[in-house]
This record gives sequence, structure tokens and C-alpha cells, in this order.
Amino acid sequence: MAKEHLKLQIPIGVRDLLPDEALRKRSLENTFDKTFRVWGYNEVVTPTFEYYDALSIGRGAEEDARLYKFVDRQGHILTLRPDMTTPIVRLVCSKMRDVQMPLRIFYMANVFSFEDPQAGRQREFYQSGIELIGDGSPFADAEVIAISVEILKASGLQNFKVSIGHVDILYGMMEELGLPEAQKGRIKNAVSNKNYVGLQELLEEFNIPALDKERFMQIITTHGDNNTVLEARKLASNDKTLKALDILRDVYSALEAYEITQFVEIDLGVLRGLDYYTGVVFEGYSAYIGYPILGGGRYNNLMGQFGFECPATGFALGMERLLLSLEKEGNENGFGTDPDYLIVYGATQASEAFKKARELRNAGKIVVTHQADNGNKEIYGGPGTTVITMR
Amino acid sequence: MAKEHLKLQIPIGVRDLLPDEALRKRSLENTFDKTFRVWGYNEVVTPTFEYYDALSIGRGAEEDARLYKFVDRQGHILTLRPDMTTPIVRLVCSKMRDVQMPLRIFYMANVFSFEDPQAGRQREFYQSGIELIGDGSPFADAEVIAISVEILKASGLQNFKVSIGHVDILYGMMEELGLPEAQKGRIKNAVSNKNYVGLQELLEEFNIPALDKERFMQIITTHGDNNTVLEARKLASNDKTLKALDILRDVYSALEAYEITQFVEIDLGVLRGLDYYTGVVFEGYSAYIGYPILGGGRYNNLMGQFGFECPATGFALGMERLLLSLEKEGNENGFGTDPDYLIVYGATQASEAFKKARELRNAGKIVVTHQADNGNKEIYGGPGTTVITMR
Repeated sequence: MAKEHLKLQIPIGVRDLLPDEALRKRSLENTFDKTFRVWGYNEVVTPTFEYYDALSIGRGAEEDARLYKFVDRQGHILTLRPDMTTPIVRLVCSKMRDVQMPLRIFYMANVFSFEDPQAGRQREFYQSGIELIGDGSPFADAEVIAISVEILKASGLQNFKVSIGHVDILYGMMEELGLPEAQKGRIKNAVSNKNYVGLQELLEEFNIPALDKERFMQIITTHGDNNTVLEARKLASNDKTLKALDILRDVYSALEAYEITQFVEIDLGVLRGLDYYTGVVFEGYSAYIGYPILGGGRYNNLMGQFGFECPATGFALGMERLLLSLEKEGNENGFGTDPDYLIVYGATQASEAFKKARELRNAGKIVVTHQADNGNKEIYGGPGTTVITMR
Repeated sequence: MAKEHLKLQIPIGVRDLLPDEALRKRSLENTFDKTFRVWGYNEVVTPTFEYYDALSIGRGAEEDARLYKFVDRQGHILTLRPDMTTPIVRLVCSKMRDVQMPLRIFYMANVFSFEDPQAGRQREFYQSGIELIGDGSPFADAEVIAISVEILKASGLQNFKVSIGHVDILYGMMEELGLPEAQKGRIKNAVSNKNYVGLQELLEEFNIPALDKERFMQIITTHGDNNTVLEARKLASNDKTLKALDILRDVYSALEAYEITQFVEIDLGVLRGLDYYTGVVFEGYSAYIGYPILGGGRYNNLMGQFGFECPATGFALGMERLLLSLEKEGNENGFGTDPDYLIVYGATQASEAFKKARELRNAGKIVVTHQADNGNKEIYGGPGTTVITMR
């Protein structure tokens, strides 16, 4: 039954992490763990697969098609989790709704998406992130953005920016123009993909009056600090968009109080792909790759679909994308894996060798012992390894 | 399509880890990470699912039936990994065969087995373990056993024992008695399950002469230190069993050199279930649960099935089982998750509040900030939380 040629291969879109990469991933996770905890966040772990009936909630048809599905022996459809937000919402709504809100949760997990593998898009990939549940204020939005900046800084990354928008900027303008649903969907796609040429073409195709079109493009491409919010305010003329701008202004003011505005900018074209976002959304970019390292935002309606109305916001960071950015920045110091000591011993010196090894390990040193008589072949350490011979 | 009643549930045999348990798991993993590294082991990460053609190698029919299988869009059968040994062997044979041997690898991973959930048997569970590849000597067996003791000690567990056997003890005796394969299989099962009453019945059913039967039972139930090996040596009369006893004696001598014999014992009835073991095998038990917390041993033939002949040994520890043992031992100190500080601030004091929070977090304190004017409801910390109010 086994096909000989497959046994040394792994499926398309999944990866092995060899020691150096695994160490970088674990070092980052340790850093994130410390950072999330000092901000009062607690980790949860959820199952790798769950019922399709839970994990499909809040996902559009396109996202649904990317779910890994299989059937269990009771005939239920199971799904490999595509992200951690829905499982955490399911967990909170079923097991933590009596806990004092706001609730601060973090996770580090592998997630799955069936898609054509391309740079940065694996079928299994690793995410770290947080959810802040039960606080609908701009201060909550600002807190999760501040933490996204903190962990990028803590990772050692130098050149990055977190761009902040609000879904109602676009939704308000589309309503104002009275666009039908199908047209809204196509515009949303173009904005999500930052395809501004395509967006302009769509607005022409939909016969939007020249002035409205210009105003639309101006608002969507606005980015900068709180002054740009004021500029956009002059151009906007519907309540939904104006209210979104006011919220962005409050979020930005809180980020000023966090003293991190050099790492963030308001970008009214930021939208995020997922249907479940309802408010402030944001994306973190490094200078080295063309897709976001992290993304997130407010999703005030998702909890309600699990029977527990509650505002919430959060973000997820893609570990592979951050590791790739760090690598491109040349930020790979301190990840050596050679042992500090190699103790080569004869069988009769075993006690002495193990005692020495124990002392060194207790002091945090990496020690390999090697029994090397009876014709055992010689082994050697790395350039920084001290070799101790006992025989 | 979604079934309402399933959306707040998770499938049978998988679990959510709430913050306290997730913290205990991560604390253990951090401890293991440090321990494995000072012994010179490096982590690898492999995909959650791989080709069935790779992961089914070395597994009997019963184990095969417990694999989670699904079909990808190219028609290949994919399998959720049932353990980490086979993926690591596949990885080493395809990508690390030119690395200097012996190779020291560790992992922390979730694995999957489709079975009736019972105490300690989940369908998704967490394993930590090591593989020592390329050293066939008893010193290599002793090293992995010593590390299994080290990590149990490092976990804080007090009452445990690692029992050490060798598969050829039994295989040699069964050959000596000239048993047909079907009978061997039934005897192997009884010994694996430590079902000594059933074993005695089987030996009667198979018409084993009384003296042989007595000798068989005596050897299989022998346990203790190196003196018990000497006792068993007097009873054994075939080369395979005798050679296995000599290896166990050498392993035990090395464990004396490690000064850890108070945590180990030789138990000639230890066999392990998996077909791929070829030499020394061992199991770690706590005083609190009836099934092993960890298990492992030598598997010198598995690498060859992936085209790279090479001796290897290792073990896997069940995280849930260790966590359960620690809990039963009352060893739950130091896992508090309340914030150290709760800073309640008015909007105009945001800068001041965030500055204070930053200072405290930089000092490693857990700090939650809460914006509490505009009628936001009050929140409170735990009994050990210092509340700072700024408004």
C-alpha cells in the first residue's frame, strides 16, 4: 500500500523546522510569552481540530473553501483550525463567560489553510496572538495595537510599521454612494488587496460621479498621524465614516500616551479580509516582505453568534513571516547551537565524566558526553566548544 | 448546514486547556527545553500531518487502525502524526544524514490517536521527548534514561520510578520454547499489558512444561538492581536473553555512574507495545496513575526502513499524564495568574498610567491597565494585586 517515493517526502505547503529555525521560533515564543504575561494576558490551548459547525461561523464562502475538513467515525465534519480567534471565542462563550471582564487571552498555535503555497503562505503555519474580550472602548483598541508594537520591538525587528484603519471608513462611503451588494463586494476586495488601480477602474465601471470618485480615492489613500484624520474629516460626509474617524482619533491619542507613534500610522485603506471585523483594524508590515506580519482588529459581533454578546478585539502574528523579516534584516545573532563542552570519556571514567557534566549543566552550560573507547569513532564540537578528555 | 448544538462543543477526546493548565504546560515545556539543551539536544518541528506512506512505517495493524487519515485534493492519504519518532526519523533520513553523528534531537508536539477516550488516553495529546541517533552503545541507552529521570526531577515530581527492560529477554525465551508466531503475539500482548495472570494461563494453554513455565515467569517478573540481573542470568539458557541481560547490566552500571539508581529499576517484564523496538526499553511511572508517564527505548531497524541504517534510541513523555501526576502529588505551587498591579486611570491620565505600567512591566511585573471613566464598570485584581488609581 505504501508508495515508496512518498515516504521521504512531506506534503506541499507544510514544513520541517530544522534546529536553527526551531530555536529561533522557540526564542520568539519565549519572548512573546513574557511580553503577553506582563500585560496581564493568560494563555489558552484549544484542540487542533473541532466541529465544522463551530469553526465555520463568521467565515465567507471563499474562506470556507480553504478549511481542511474530514469526517469522524460518528459522521460529524471535523475541521483543522484555520485561526485561533474562533476557537477562543467558542471557548470563552462555553467555559469562561462568568469570568470577570475584560478577559485577556493569548495563544501560540499552528493553524491550517488549504491554499496554493506561495511566499509566506503555507498550508500549516504558526501564529501568536491575543484577544481582549469585553472592552469596546478605543483604549482597548489602543492596548492591543500597543502590544503588537511591543512584541515586534521585543523580537528585535527594527524596520516595521503598524497601519491602523477602521472598516466603517469604507462601509460608510459605500452606503453613501448607494452601491448594491455585489459592487460593494468587489470594491471591498480591491481595497483589502490595496489594489488602488483596480479600485479606480471599478469606480469608473460603476459610474460614480467624478467628484465622489475623487473624494473616495482621497479618503481611502489617506495615511499619516492624527492630522490626516482631521483632513479626512473635512472630506467625509456620512455619519458612519465620521464616527469611525473619531474613534481612530481617540485610538491614536492613546497611542501617543503609549509613546509609540513612531511605529504606527493611520491608513484609511486598511480593511483586513475577514468578514467578522466590525471596527478598528490594523496590520503590521516589515520593510522586507510585501504582506503583513500581523493583523487584527475589532470583532464585536462574533461572540454574539456563539450566544454571548460581547465586544472584542485582538491580533494574530505570523511566526514564519516575522522569522523571514528578521532573517532579511540580518538579525540572527545569538542562535548558536554548538555545545559549550564536549566531554570524551573512557568507560571506567564514566562517574567522573558524568559528575563534571552535571556541574556544568547545573551552571547552564550545554554539555555533550561521548563514550569513546572500544573503537567508537571520534566526534568533535563546534568552533566554540571546549573539549575535555577523560581516559 | 451548521448544527446549532455542536457549535459550543468540542469533539470527544480533545480538550481545551484553560489558563491555569496552559501555564502549567508551558512552565513544564520551558523546564524541559532548558534541560534538553544543556544535554546538547536541539529541537526540531515537523508538520502536523504527513503522507500515510511515511507515518505508517513500523506500525502493526492495530496501531494502523488508530491513525487519523484523510485524503488531500491530489488523492494522497494524509495522516495526523501519531507520535514524533517516525516523523523525526523521516526528517533525519531525508535532510540530516550528513550531519555528524550521534545526533541529539528533542521535540514538544501534539500527536493524535483515534481511540476510546479513557483516563489518560486522549485523541489529541501532548508529548515531549528526545531521540539519540547514531550511537548503539549501552551508554546511549543510559543517557536517554538519565535524561528521562532528569526531566521528571526537574518537573518537581517526587515519587516516580523508571523501569528498564530489553525486548530480547522475552523474544529469546519465546524462541527457546519454539512457540509459533500466533502464540508469540498473544504472549507479547499479555507481557506488554503486565497481565501476569493471563500470561500464566497462556503458558498453560500452550502446554509449556512446568519447569520452563516457572523459569519463564520468574525471569519475566524479575525486578531490582544489578543483582537481579545476576539472578536472572542463572535462570536464562539462550544466547539472545543472556546477551540482553549483559546489555542491561552495562546500562545499569552507567546509571550508577550518573548517580540516579534511586530513581530506576531493572524490570525484565518491561516490553512496550510498539513493534519497532529492538533493544533496551523503559517506562516511567509515578505513584499516582496506573499507566506510564513516559516510555521509550532502542529502535535500531526503523531508520533502515527509510534508507539510512543507523542505531537510535529515545523516549516520549505524556504531558497530560505528568500534569495529572503533579496535581495528585499536590505540586501546584507558583502558578498564580493574578496581575501584580492594576492601574485604573482616567482618560486624561493615560500618559502617566502607561508610563508607570511600562516601568513595572520592564521590571517583570504583570500589569493590567483599565480606563475607568465614562461609566466604564469597575474591575478588581486578585488578592495579591496592588491597585493604583490615577484620575
